[in-house]
Amino acid sequence: MSERLIVVGGVAAGMSAAAKARRTNPDLEIEVYEKTGYVSYGACGIPYFVKGEIPNVDDLIARTPEQFAKQRIYAHTYHEVLDINVENHTVRVRNLDTGEEFTDHWDKLILTTGGVAARPPIPGLSLPGIFTVRTPEDGLAIRQWIAEQRPTRGLIVGGGYIGLEMAEALAAHGIHVTIVEMLPQVMPNMDADMVEHIQAELERQGVDLQLEHPVEAFEGDGRVREVVAGGEHFPADIVIFSVGVKPNVTLAKQAGIVLGPTGAVAVDDHMRTNVPNVWAAGDVAEVHHLVTGKPAYIPLGTTANKQGRVAGTNAAGGDAAFGGVVGTAVVKVFDLHAARTGLSEREAREEGFDVAIVTIKSSSKAHYMPHPSPIHVKLVFEKGSHRLLGGQIVGREGVAKRIDIIATALHAGWTTYDLAKLDLAYAPPFSPVWDPILVAANVASR
Amino acid sequence: MSERLIVVGGVAAGMSAAAKARRTNPDLEIEVYEKTGYVSYGACGIPYFVKGEIPNVDDLIARTPEQFAKQRIYAHTYHEVLDINVENHTVRVRNLDTGEEFTDHWDKLILTTGGVAARPPIPGLSLPGIFTVRTPEDGLAIRQWIAEQRPTRGLIVGGGYIGLEMAEALAAHGIHVTIVEMLPQVMPNMDADMVEHIQAELERQGVDLQLEHPVEAFEGDGRVREVVAGGEHFPADIVIFSVGVKPNVTLAKQAGIVLGPTGAVAVDDHMRTNVPNVWAAGDVAEVHHLVTGKPAYIPLGTTANKQGRVAGTNAAGGDAAFGGVVGTAVVKVFDLHAARTGLSEREAREEGFDVAIVTIKSSSKAHYMPHPSPIHVKLVFEKGSHRLLGGQIVGREGVAKRIDIIATALHAGWTTYDLAKLDLAYAPPFSPVWDPILVAANVASR
Repeated sequence: MSERLIVVGGVAAGMSAAAKARRTNPDLEIEVYEKTGYVSYGACGIPYFVKGEIPNVDDLIARTPEQFAKQRIYAHTYHEVLDINVENHTVRVRNLDTGEEFTDHWDKLILTTGGVAARPPIPGLSLPGIFTVRTPEDGLAIRQWIAEQRPTRGLIVGGGYIGLEMAEALAAHGIHVTIVEMLPQVMPNMDADMVEHIQAELERQGVDLQLEHPVEAFEGDGRVREVVAGGEHFPADIVIFSVGVKPNVTLAKQAGIVLGPTGAVAVDDHMRTNVPNVWAAGDVAEVHHLVTGKPAYIPLGTTANKQGRVAGTNAAGGDAAFGGVVGTAVVKVFDLHAARTGLSEREAREEGFDVAIVTIKSSSKAHYMPHPSPIHVKLVFEKGSHRLLGGQIVGREGVAKRIDIIATALHAGWTTYDLAKLDLAYAPPFSPVWDPILVAANVASR
Repeated sequence: MSERLIVVGGVAAGMSAAAKARRTNPDLEIEVYEKTGYVSYGACGIPYFVKGEIPNVDDLIARTPEQFAKQRIYAHTYHEVLDINVENHTVRVRNLDTGEEFTDHWDKLILTTGGVAARPPIPGLSLPGIFTVRTPEDGLAIRQWIAEQRPTRGLIVGGGYIGLEMAEALAAHGIHVTIVEMLPQVMPNMDADMVEHIQAELERQGVDLQLEHPVEAFEGDGRVREVVAGGEHFPADIVIFSVGVKPNVTLAKQAGIVLGPTGAVAVDDHMRTNVPNVWAAGDVAEVHHLVTGKPAYIPLGTTANKQGRVAGTNAAGGDAAFGGVVGTAVVKVFDLHAARTGLSEREAREEGFDVAIVTIKSSSKAHYMPHPSPIHVKLVFEKGSHRLLGGQIVGREGVAKRIDIIATALHAGWTTYDLAKLDLAYAPPFSPVWDPILVAANVASR
């Protein structure tokens, strides 16, 4: 008799796991339970759907349940797993359409319940017109609100990736945008000196940036009308609440699956949990950070896909290991691109490194070409050894894949001396003859 | 008494060497002799000057002799070094303006005589209207010919980097362009399957591509009128002759400086020649290729700058080593970007590797974003060990710095398995959730 794999959650990690499990083992029975109405969607595209660059929410779907069914991967939307029994190898499932509940049996289980938007107990947070940004349903609700209510004042709580992408999305609808952020800067995982360029771009685009303004309350008469933050009142007829993501560990805790120091599910490099035959992957799980050597919680779609593949391979009887992360990320903020990898200066100090930094300003292309744009590079490294610890790049072009050069160097465990020796691509339209990364590495290696 | 450094040739390698020598040793006397009218120019920008994107040839100049003089670096244009005497430590110099000849003395000498355009003995090659593309004077002459003669039919001999860039430059003036190439493909250091995309772009842009057409003669009545290639006659009122670059080793040979197997000056990692106190750098010198472990001749501006720095440091009493190359390069061909690093499939076979390849087609951004463009990635690796040997990328965006990820992996000596584990930057405007490089590495690692 063939074995049965149940995947709890059908987004990036879950459907990657299911697809890879099928390729690894053609005989496996594979069932996926997903409580929303969509599987296999690109959650990172939701701000661009809200912006209007993506016409239909269905465009975000990589593959439908019908397409998965052709591979005998049965993905059930509107099906919520209520509990996991690790002794009997069962799950209790509710069909959210019919209310019907049933029990299903598994030989292998992959937990990919993802993350949930953090929702601290702030008065009025449940008022209509306040949205989080996690699922296609969220995107649809925001588009519907914009179409029906015609908001003119948008307020975004939280200046992380999603907050900044949503600022651009709302502004594209002619909505005046205010960002309120508790911290003294947006993008908390980049350093203040690099974030200055992002904040200048937000201001240039007409965004009202209110730093060190913790949100105290949302007010309104049956819908949001005003936000109280840092003692000030801001009128708002649409609010995006994006103060961070937490691992959705309710089921994991109920099942007795051990969490790590970050609060997410602890996994080894095979994505195994402490429970035999149970793997976890994606935004519910920790990652191994290659620079610190410690577990970290960095929920990103690209990691979720990789971890899902590894969990799916192993659950299906194969053998795969996840290589860990170096914390690489990039975000588009209106016309500016900002990227980071490894540890920021602040993070590196917090980890106890004896930190040195170099920050340089260079150009996206040869100085004599038309329209070169400034590009800022920061390297974080260890004094003495010159071991590279991290990098940040901000500019208008050539940022996203340039950060990957530093990310690759971090994977290799390099020093700034190694980085300075790189034979990088050069032609006048793409880079100065000394690539900005080489300029920074040369300065760091003096 | 302070020592005297003479630098023979004042372009990329020469002026980098001089500037770095000054920073290394404030007391050194530094004289540079350059036979053209310009020092410190960006030769790679000449096609864009011809195209008209760069208004003035002076824009290509990074620093003038006057600016260098402020650092007590004395750069003499129109001064040709006629011979080098390594016994007496002298050079014989001719002032090309006045015809005057004189002898100068050196304690240290850096040879940066660069490369020269290859000029095989083809009848009519000296006819007016036929140009090579090496110096600002070449660029000015081409611009002047276009302005005065109003050519309508341009013919480019040679489909390498410069030939392709000049095709775009001439087409921008409304000139109908024909490329004649001896080989069965353009871009000989990329593989035919990847070059297909480049050739399709040339045809889409209206360029007439004549492959396997060796040039036999140029004909005309006091100026070029027709080109005979592969037995066919092509009318042409402007010709760009770009069949390759050879190291300019006339002086090196005369001075008894040893050449390597490639015909360029043999150097160690400190850019030392066989002659004590004589270094060489840039297009006149060989490079150490990190993938083959052998000397190679790959004349590129970025390498020239790096080698110049190393030679300047060492000649001034410091200690620096050149890290070698992996053969990274990128070229813009109209709206297409093509890049390569390491060994092509053909080169890898010629080197005796047991070669495997993977070629994938992916997208420059998330599938649901507006206007994603196709991106093609080829990986060349060793069967069995999966050691990465090279990569090629062709697309309309995200090519130049994406090849650098593969270049960095080659520096690290990685396998395709290592490459597949990379934590690369992802956001929908910049990449699919699986970066094209990861897709290729995953396929290669099956």
